[in-house]
Amino acid sequence: MHITGKNFIGFDQSACGKVTFQTFNPNNETANEWLFTEATPEEVDAAVHLASEAFLPYQKCSGDNKALFLRNIVLELEKVKDHLLTIYGLESALSRPRAEIEFARTVEQLHAFAQLLEEGDWVEASIDTAITDRPSSPKADIRKMHIPLGPIVVFGASNFPLAYSTAGGDSISALAAGCPVLVKAHSLHAGTGNIVAQAIISAAQSSGMPNGVFSNLQGSGKKVGAQLVQHPLVKGVGFTGSIQGGRALVAHAAKRKEPIPVFAEMGSINPVVVLPSALKTDSVRWASTLAASITGSSGQFCTKPGIILGITGPLFSKFIVHLGKKLMKITPSSMLHSTIQSNYAEMTRMIARQEGVSIIGSRGNSNAVNVGEINAMLVDGKVFLENGKLAQEVFGPFSLVIQCENKNQLLGILNSLEGQLTGSIIACELELKNEPQLIEALQKKVGRMIFNGVPTGVEVCPSMTHGGPFPASSDSRFTAVGIHSIKRWVRPFSFQNWPQLLLPDELKDDNPKNILRLLNKECTRDKVK
Amino acid sequence: MHITGKNFIGFDQSACGKVTFQTFNPNNETANEWLFTEATPEEVDAAVHLASEAFLPYQKCSGDNKALFLRNIVLELEKVKDHLLTIYGLESALSRPRAEIEFARTVEQLHAFAQLLEEGDWVEASIDTAITDRPSSPKADIRKMHIPLGPIVVFGASNFPLAYSTAGGDSISALAAGCPVLVKAHSLHAGTGNIVAQAIISAAQSSGMPNGVFSNLQGSGKKVGAQLVQHPLVKGVGFTGSIQGGRALVAHAAKRKEPIPVFAEMGSINPVVVLPSALKTDSVRWASTLAASITGSSGQFCTKPGIILGITGPLFSKFIVHLGKKLMKITPSSMLHSTIQSNYAEMTRMIARQEGVSIIGSRGNSNAVNVGEINAMLVDGKVFLENGKLAQEVFGPFSLVIQCENKNQLLGILNSLEGQLTGSIIACELELKNEPQLIEALQKKVGRMIFNGVPTGVEVCPSMTHGGPFPASSDSRFTAVGIHSIKRWVRPFSFQNWPQLLLPDELKDDNPKNILRLLNKECTRDKVK
Repeated sequence: MHITGKNFIGFDQSACGKVTFQTFNPNNETANEWLFTEATPEEVDAAVHLASEAFLPYQKCSGDNKALFLRNIVLELEKVKDHLLTIYGLESALSRPRAEIEFARTVEQLHAFAQLLEEGDWVEASIDTAITDRPSSPKADIRKMHIPLGPIVVFGASNFPLAYSTAGGDSISALAAGCPVLVKAHSLHAGTGNIVAQAIISAAQSSGMPNGVFSNLQGSGKKVGAQLVQHPLVKGVGFTGSIQGGRALVAHAAKRKEPIPVFAEMGSINPVVVLPSALKTDSVRWASTLAASITGSSGQFCTKPGIILGITGPLFSKFIVHLGKKLMKITPSSMLHSTIQSNYAEMTRMIARQEGVSIIGSRGNSNAVNVGEINAMLVDGKVFLENGKLAQEVFGPFSLVIQCENKNQLLGILNSLEGQLTGSIIACELELKNEPQLIEALQKKVGRMIFNGVPTGVEVCPSMTHGGPFPASSDSRFTAVGIHSIKRWVRPFSFQNWPQLLLPDELKDDNPKNILRLLNKECTRDKVK
Repeated sequence: MHITGKNFIGFDQSACGKVTFQTFNPNNETANEWLFTEATPEEVDAAVHLASEAFLPYQKCSGDNKALFLRNIVLELEKVKDHLLTIYGLESALSRPRAEIEFARTVEQLHAFAQLLEEGDWVEASIDTAITDRPSSPKADIRKMHIPLGPIVVFGASNFPLAYSTAGGDSISALAAGCPVLVKAHSLHAGTGNIVAQAIISAAQSSGMPNGVFSNLQGSGKKVGAQLVQHPLVKGVGFTGSIQGGRALVAHAAKRKEPIPVFAEMGSINPVVVLPSALKTDSVRWASTLAASITGSSGQFCTKPGIILGITGPLFSKFIVHLGKKLMKITPSSMLHSTIQSNYAEMTRMIARQEGVSIIGSRGNSNAVNVGEINAMLVDGKVFLENGKLAQEVFGPFSLVIQCENKNQLLGILNSLEGQLTGSIIACELELKNEPQLIEALQKKVGRMIFNGVPTGVEVCPSMTHGGPFPASSDSRFTAVGIHSIKRWVRPFSFQNWPQLLLPDELKDDNPKNILRLLNKECTRDKVK
């Protein structure tokens, strides 16, 4: 499949603008060959109008049809997989094995949402039948289900060119919900995005989806995204990226005449608490596991362990030595882009300069460019509490070990943190049981709590929460991963006294889709008698 | 029960401030006897801290315990019912039958949430068990359920002193979720609020709830509310009131260091479309039903039909005459407050002055004070489309009839409207079937669509959606009425690889609460084997 470099305004490719840009190969610091044309304001406007026109016919497509569309995206992606993963590598410097994992995850997500649509329970249908002879006053027949919000704008993530971008979790959950999607292509992997967009468009056409159900708009700056978020016909936004970026979008959305929901997943330092009991027997193993988690994909995961907390003493001191050794055995690799690399280098230098911070280990790699130097640093709990700069996310293969005087100080640090995606505790079960305060403090701050494990490797399954209190996400009431992420793009809608014939299938008396419904307060697949 | 006029800082009554205010009896335009003391900034801060301290122990209370608390509130309210409804009348001028209905609704809501807690399914527990031998990599055990957000601030509604105020839907759904509640008492019915607060506090004490689970703070201006919404320990806000008020709160919440969700139900003009088929046979009946809906409780319902749309012609002309006659047979009554009455009078005069607006009927009542004059006006569709002032909510017994040239114009008007709580269509079933465009246009704008009925009389049942696209509510993804309104105050939380003993009962293998769970993607009450 050929990278066209053009925008997709629905099914049509368009490149009316004069501004072009290229992507870069971080492995050799050269521009990739393809030229991408930025979408003009007119093209953006045309795409949104097309999405708005597609909304109604797309909403009316059956769940099975939408599922077919999603499964056809998989088929199209698989056709171009090899080429796609090559481009992915050229634009991200992420390894082929990592690309394979992310491709599999993307496919898995598509299938999971297709299955959700085929089963149909997700609309949370609820039926309260009429009570005409109620003593106070007759009760009307009322029936409720989820309906889609309308066109959704999705901003892809720099660190997940597939699974959190063009055909990633936000796009696919919105499409599954019945919302047309407008992707603002990430400029760092516009080629990957272009190929994925072509696959989605082919699938939409072969599945009989309305033109406008999907558009892909390119831009190297902030203009295209800002226009999309402010467009009156856009009804929601999904974003994965930095706190500044997320907050700016939330502010744009709030200032609209009609404010719209923005779900932004923004970042996290994912505290890992290592308790003494674990270090008695498994110090080396945990050092090794954490080192891998810190450095995987050059530490460019939003769930990377950014701080590791322990109680001062010989056990923790030994663990720090182990961790340093394990980290220094890992060969650092190129980061996603030179600006990401230079931001990372600057952040680690800044942290290293702070009073009371010492270096556990640091390792570069002169055989590659744009390398994310592996860095582990150490600080006392007291110093950490007093210096807010140390609690920032450092995007890259870095972790800050915090040596606490005692459990009280550790607790104080957990209480001082902002909202996080995850929190982990490494301990023996008995010790965990004796630390209710620690569990409570952690639970308040995070969306997912892990026992004896690392936070990276976010499983795609219904029980996953990928989100958390601000600023981990802009709205802790939703998850960005798993089938329930669809809830971000739907609203409950009630039909009162509505004629059977005109009700959606999900709410008809005879339950033609055989879905689970709340029928007069009972969960059942029964028909209404 | 004695009206103390004091604030409740948890279980303690406090009146440290120097600013006092009184409520007014709109029926005779005199001040009621009781003096209320505004909460000082220190009292507000103390109440929030107490709520924050109560959060953890309250969250840990079992569902059955919380249900007992809610059912004890009912017992306490019933003890003081007669006195309470007298005060309610003295502060609102709402009739005794209306007071009885609202009391019953309040009780019904408390029982509905108690039942929800006793059953326990509402936490949406989801379990994905471990797959240790998965070829790619082992899968961890992950389990998810809803947990409460934290202390919630509730602003009561002027027009529902019971069902949407101190112990109303917002407070009770938040308490059911496990969130301590801080009520900013509505200054127009501070006495009613004081009695209800005493009932809640008594119930909290007799049910063994932690001090701080509920506080009631008084203020006649905006200061107390603004401080509450900006307080860092507050985690969410529920509001029912005007668009200006709601937007101000949303803005306050967005500007916080940690933005928090605000669910504001703000208002609606609830379009009612009357199609010719209904007017052939039932013109008089619908005129009568609509007249009652427009004027009930002096038109002070957020679901009052504010605009009535029809197609010009002899049938619609006759209907307008019938509507005018029916309205003029109704005796207007006092409104909630003299400022509400004067705002209403000003709004109706403003509408009457607009070019192209004519009066269908107008009726005052010189035997009472603060009367909401019943007003019905008429305007052509073209004029309505050109004059944005006509699309505003007029809070009171007013409706604007819009005579459209044809269905296209009617459709144009629906498309021009902002978000609404409800939309109604009055027609025969056959005609409705032939109007898919009309249904689609209406559905896009509203949260609930009614066939052959009026929007007032919001049923408390699981299938109810009370909410809608902005500005009907600040977030269309939630309902303010019915058990699912609890979703506003919870977030999903995942436990990964967590020890059985330390999991909440809802997520334990043996399912001790026998709740419905999603177990490896299947909905079941089964234990985990």
